[in-house]
Amino acid sequence: MLKQGLIQIYTGDGKGKTTAAIGQVVRALGHNLKVCWISFFKDPEKWGYGEFAILRKWGVDIYHFALQHPYFCEKSSPSSRGRQSALFKKIRQECLKALGFISEIFKKDYDIVVLDEINIALRDGFLKEDEILFLLKEKPGSTEVILTGRAATKKLCQKASLVTEMTNLKHPFDKGIKSRKGIEY
Amino acid sequence: MLKQGLIQIYTGDGKGKTTAAIGQVVRALGHNLKVCWISFFKDPEKWGYGEFAILRKWGVDIYHFALQHPYFCEKSSPSSRGRQSALFKKIRQECLKALGFISEIFKKDYDIVVLDEINIALRDGFLKEDEILFLLKEKPGSTEVILTGRAATKKLCQKASLVTEMTNLKHPFDKGIKSRKGIEY
Repeated sequence: MLKQGLIQIYTGDGKGKTTAAIGQVVRALGHNLKVCWISFFKDPEKWGYGEFAILRKWGVDIYHFALQHPYFCEKSSPSSRGRQSALFKKIRQECLKALGFISEIFKKDYDIVVLDEINIALRDGFLKEDEILFLLKEKPGSTEVILTGRAATKKLCQKASLVTEMTNLKHPFDKGIKSRKGIEY
Repeated sequence: MLKQGLIQIYTGDGKGKTTAAIGQVVRALGHNLKVCWISFFKDPEKWGYGEFAILRKWGVDIYHFALQHPYFCEKSSPSSRGRQSALFKKIRQECLKALGFISEIFKKDYDIVVLDEINIALRDGFLKEDEILFLLKEKPGSTEVILTGRAATKKLCQKASLVTEMTNLKHPFDKGIKSRKGIEY
């Protein structure tokens, strides 16, 4: 059990945010810590993200929310017109459901709780900053919470003890190389 | 097996370089890729890095080199006087031995080969840039090679297809919080 659980944020436009969180989880599993992974927007069936099956096998509890995000692409955000749609409202409801769920998860003595891509939920308007800040207040003192996703806001970063910005200096996508199984997903 | 293996570099002063490499490895394991992890300077006995035991259990082949680096601390580098010492020369020999070993590993059809902290070997003068560039020329076309560590040089970055710079915007060490088991190691 961690004596002191902090808040970590991995943000920026470079590859390495979610993988850094996975690596942190593996390190923690090596010391028998208990981990819960909450994922926003990533449909494991659709993309076959290789990491989820492995982490689940090793005892990480994994939950997926808001798989319907049709715009989910780290680079773009729904238009203001898109934000009026019924689908947008449905995804907002899903994200709010996730917040309620996470608040219950905080009562379950996990050492680490990862909120993967939650920063995108804020960037894209599905969640409000105050809603996330309120949730973080409920974090138990011995739980480390890791937030990933581009565009973490200043206020979220103020609440964190660790913030790393991953900057994309070079990416194979820029040269037209497509997403590769085992590497990008 | 990867159709196209590239070179990835995770550099910068922020937390997340080695953990991003671990995460990448876990994702790859999820797709049954074959992984070899070569670690410089990190003594698993001394620090009990939680990740090594777990990754080994998952079938990753792990090899450690140059554990004697007495200065190994990501922030500082040996002084010019230190570089004259017998110990320095011994570590350089160990690093050269690692290069020879990696060149043999390249013949063994791994999908991913991680060279953890190799950038530090270059920064600290244990390896020369040309020696690493020469090694990278031997990389098979279907093997992804991941280099981690601060201070990756321009020439190394030119050879890579993916470069992410992890920038430390905030770290608990700055507030005097000590290294925590399961989090920092």
